[in-house]
Amino acid sequence: VKSEAEAVAALLAELTMRGDVRVGIGDDAAVIGPDPGTLLAHDMIVENVHFRWSTHSAADIGHLCLAVNLSDIAAMGGQPTAAVVGIAGPLEQLGEIGLRHMYRAMDALAESAGCAIVGGDLSQAPVTVIGVTVIGVMPSGVAPVTRSGANIGDALCITGSLGRSAAGRALLDDPPRHPTPQMTALMDAHRRPTPRLSEGRLLAAGGATAMMDISDGLLIDAARLAAASGHRVVLDLDSLPVEPDVAAVARSRAARPDVFAASGGEDYELLVTLRPGLLGPLGDLVIQIGEVREGPTGLQVVRGTTPVSVHDRGWDHLRSPAG
Amino acid sequence: VKSEAEAVAALLAELTMRGDVRVGIGDDAAVIGPDPGTLLAHDMIVENVHFRWSTHSAADIGHLCLAVNLSDIAAMGGQPTAAVVGIAGPLEQLGEIGLRHMYRAMDALAESAGCAIVGGDLSQAPVTVIGVTVIGVMPSGVAPVTRSGANIGDALCITGSLGRSAAGRALLDDPPRHPTPQMTALMDAHRRPTPRLSEGRLLAAGGATAMMDISDGLLIDAARLAAASGHRVVLDLDSLPVEPDVAAVARSRAARPDVFAASGGEDYELLVTLRPGLLGPLGDLVIQIGEVREGPTGLQVVRGTTPVSVHDRGWDHLRSPAG
Repeated sequence: VKSEAEAVAALLAELTMRGDVRVGIGDDAAVIGPDPGTLLAHDMIVENVHFRWSTHSAADIGHLCLAVNLSDIAAMGGQPTAAVVGIAGPLEQLGEIGLRHMYRAMDALAESAGCAIVGGDLSQAPVTVIGVTVIGVMPSGVAPVTRSGANIGDALCITGSLGRSAAGRALLDDPPRHPTPQMTALMDAHRRPTPRLSEGRLLAAGGATAMMDISDGLLIDAARLAAASGHRVVLDLDSLPVEPDVAAVARSRAARPDVFAASGGEDYELLVTLRPGLLGPLGDLVIQIGEVREGPTGLQVVRGTTPVSVHDRGWDHLRSPAG
Repeated sequence: VKSEAEAVAALLAELTMRGDVRVGIGDDAAVIGPDPGTLLAHDMIVENVHFRWSTHSAADIGHLCLAVNLSDIAAMGGQPTAAVVGIAGPLEQLGEIGLRHMYRAMDALAESAGCAIVGGDLSQAPVTVIGVTVIGVMPSGVAPVTRSGANIGDALCITGSLGRSAAGRALLDDPPRHPTPQMTALMDAHRRPTPRLSEGRLLAAGGATAMMDISDGLLIDAARLAAASGHRVVLDLDSLPVEPDVAAVARSRAARPDVFAASGGEDYELLVTLRPGLLGPLGDLVIQIGEVREGPTGLQVVRGTTPVSVHDRGWDHLRSPAG
C-alpha cells in the first residue's frame, strides 16, 4: 500500500499554501497566522484500525483520540488551548453511558493538559470514527520546532523507552490469564498513551533543532525526520532504551527486542535532535539513540558500528505524513 | 431519538469551560483566547447519513465537507484562515483519482473563501467519514455574533431563499429523465452549498444581534436561536422566500411549499436578528421572516396572524447542537 500512501502524500503536498501559513502539511501540527502563530493538529482514530472495542473501553478510546492530537502539539513544543471532537458511530450501541465515559476520560486528559474541549459533532455511522482537532500556542519567545531543522553533528534523542505500546498490544492480542502489574502497565501504555507535553515545551525552549512524535514507529518516523531535514540520520539500535518487560514480550513473540521496540509504533515519545552541548542540560529529559552525520539523506540503522538492514512494518494503517 | 440527542447535548454541556474560552459548546463555532479570539468549528459528514455515493461525486463530497464548516465560521461573522481535513474510508475504492477530486474541490472552495488547507489525516475505514476543522478570525473591531443575543423588537431575517437543498435532494432521490437547468441548479444547491461568508461578515459588522446558519432546517434552528436568546421568536410562514421551482418540487411531493422550505434543512443560509432600524442599510442582504417579541421563550409559527402547528422533521441525523 506504500505507493498509495505516497500518492496521497503528494496530493496533500500539492494543496497550495495560501495566506499566513508558517508551517503546513507534513509536520506534526500546522502553524498559522502572525508570529507566534496558532498550532493546529488533527488526527482521527478508527474502529478496528487504531483501536478495537474488544480491548479498549469507551474511556480508553476517549483518552486515546485526544492523546494522539495532544502529542502532535507536544512535538512542536506547544501548549494546547482547546480541542473539538467529532464522534461518528453506532450511537444506539455506544449509548449515553458509553458516550459519557468517552467524554469524561477525554475531559480529564484535557484538564491535565491545561486545555478545554469547546465543541464538536456527533453523527450516526456504522463504525466508530473519532476525529479530534487541537489548537495551541507556543510559549512566549519560543519558535515551533519542526521536523526539518536537524543539523549535522546533532544528537538524535528520545524522551522515554520504546516498545511499551507494541508490547501492550501484543499482550492484548493474547491476554495473559494472570497479568502482572507490569503487564497491565504495558497494556495501559497502549490504550492510554501519555502525550509528552512538558517535555516538548522544555526541549523547544532548550534549543531542540528538530522534533516529532513517534506514532508509526521509530524506523518510519526517524526516516521522516531525516528526509525533512535533508540529512543522514544514524540510529544505533544498541542504544535504544527498551525495558526488561518489553524485551520479555518481544522474545516471547520471537522478535529481537531492539527491532520490536524500533518498529512497534504508538509510543508517542518525542524524537528530537539537539546540539551535543545540550545533552548535559537536557539530559534528564532524553536519551541519545543516534546522531546526524555527513552523508546521503536518509536513515541508516546500525548496531554499534555495524550497519543493520531492517524492514519497517510498512504503512499498515496508512496515515498521511501530515498526521 | 430526541431524548438521546438531548442527553448528548447535556453531556457536551457538562464539559467544563477551562482556560480562555469566550464562546464554547452550543454555538456555531467556539471562540478561544484573548480578544478578538480564534474561531474554531468542527463538523463531520458521514456516508449514507449526510451524503450518498449514489448521488454525490468525490468532488461534491470534498466541497460539501468544507462548506458546512465554513458556514459555521460565516455564522459568527468571521473570516476563515485555515482548515484541517481527516478522511476515513475504503481507500482502495476511493482510489487516488477519487481522493484527488475530493482534495481539489475542497481546495478550490478554500481558495474562494480565502483560507488554506494546512494538514490532515487519512485512514482506512469501511465507510467514508470526513471531518473538517476550520479556524478563523473576526474582522478587526467586530465581535463574534452568537445565537444568544437576540433582543425583543428585533427583526428575524434570512440571507436567501429556503428549500433549495431539500428540493435538490428530492430530485436526486427520484431523478428526472430530462432535468431542466433549474432542476440541476437545485441538485447542485444540495450537493454544493455556498457558505455565506461575506454576508456573515457584513451582518456582523452592521450590528446583527444573533446569528446562526440553517443546517437542520429553519424550524429546528429558529427554535434553537429562541432558546439560546431566551425570547419568543415569531416566524411568519407567509413571508418565507421560496422560489417557484422549489414550490413546484414541494407540491409534486404533496407538501406545502412553506412547510417544505421551513423544514428541509441544509440550506446554509444565515438566520439573523437585527434591530428594525438596520433593515434599511442591510436590506440588500436579508429578507425579514419574523420578529422577536415579548412572551414565553420558544418558537411560535404563524401564517400572517394565524398560529400554525407544524411538526419538525426530528433529529433524524442526530447532530449535536454544537455542530
